[in-house]
Amino acid sequence: MPAPLPPFEATDDTSVLAQTPRTRAVRRGDRGNHDVATIHAILDEAPVCHVGFIDGTDSPVPVVIPTVPWRVGDELLIHGSSASRMIRRLQSGGEACITVSLIDAWVLARSGFNHSVNYRSVVLFGRPRLIDDETEKRAALDALVEKIEPGRAAKVRPANAQELKATAVLAFPIAEASAKIRSGPPCDDPEDMDLPVWAGVVPLSLVAGTPIRDGE
Amino acid sequence: MPAPLPPFEATDDTSVLAQTPRTRAVRRGDRGNHDVATIHAILDEAPVCHVGFIDGTDSPVPVVIPTVPWRVGDELLIHGSSASRMIRRLQSGGEACITVSLIDAWVLARSGFNHSVNYRSVVLFGRPRLIDDETEKRAALDALVEKIEPGRAAKVRPANAQELKATAVLAFPIAEASAKIRSGPPCDDPEDMDLPVWAGVVPLSLVAGTPIRDGE
Repeated sequence: MPAPLPPFEATDDTSVLAQTPRTRAVRRGDRGNHDVATIHAILDEAPVCHVGFIDGTDSPVPVVIPTVPWRVGDELLIHGSSASRMIRRLQSGGEACITVSLIDAWVLARSGFNHSVNYRSVVLFGRPRLIDDETEKRAALDALVEKIEPGRAAKVRPANAQELKATAVLAFPIAEASAKIRSGPPCDDPEDMDLPVWAGVVPLSLVAGTPIRDGE
Repeated sequence: MPAPLPPFEATDDTSVLAQTPRTRAVRRGDRGNHDVATIHAILDEAPVCHVGFIDGTDSPVPVVIPTVPWRVGDELLIHGSSASRMIRRLQSGGEACITVSLIDAWVLARSGFNHSVNYRSVVLFGRPRLIDDETEKRAALDALVEKIEPGRAAKVRPANAQELKATAVLAFPIAEASAKIRSGPPCDDPEDMDLPVWAGVVPLSLVAGTPIRDGE
């Protein structure tokens, strides 16, 4: 039984997030990563995150909802209808675990056991703050449009009062977070290397196709 | 305050899953879908799912872990190290919420508010059974390899006793589950239709690149 860990490991290096018991890579520690730039890059690339929270009063139930995440500085933002269950739970102090996964390749090994996936993931724990200052909220929503297409926020019709009210924006500190990354070829057992089966990686990437203009 | 819903809506139609309070689409009910074939197709296409469970004893914390899902009949399977936190929590009776999201397009509207994403998602609630019969476990793990490349299970070295012991396979009934789908062009407000901004969809798809053979 390992000794209890201190809540945060002291570090003066702001390029690396402090580890907590929840963000320390216990299994496959070689894949764990707490580098801020790495974590930001994965969050920025992800079109979708999965927000886990606890619902239910009598008997707690885990709920995982997909939504588009975007980053403003050192916070990760999500938004939703002010009336949605996810927003209501989190806005009232609920804790979330937000996970982002980028799938880079299937890893085909010579044994079934050594098959794997190349991926870059981030797991973030935290409680959000509600962005309710109108100026900050407008800037935050503009940043979401900018994530989809840089330069676009200035071109679209800005939100009116009703739309702004109907939308809740939550900001999570990117503080208690860690990345996990696997890359490279399969790791086969030495005695399997001569088996007559193709082994290697099949790259996967999320690719944008030809845009389809509305009405065409 | 709506009246409490019955736990399951009676249906004799086996092509449609019964709705529960947790799987009824409350918001955007037009996007909700309980068709079994639709749910299976989304699960089959997904290279990754996000498994939400509750960790912590004193203070419950939501945790969301990405892993590769695969389907065998009307069960959704996941696997992991027998020693992993996720497996231990779920194996000991923990409830999970497993969510799969396929991102099909950015939807660019004429107002910021009407931007959206075309997606196909499944949210599944349930408690798993541990597959511990050796024959069933081997068949299940073969089915995972087959998901990656049909025909491959017969070519790779089968799991040895130690590998089999180190791997836990959990099967969730695909029973309390629902799909949610958005497709098509942006839905703009009529008064925005003449704004001089490009609107439409940018298709996104996960594409396999040229395989890279190990050692090349």
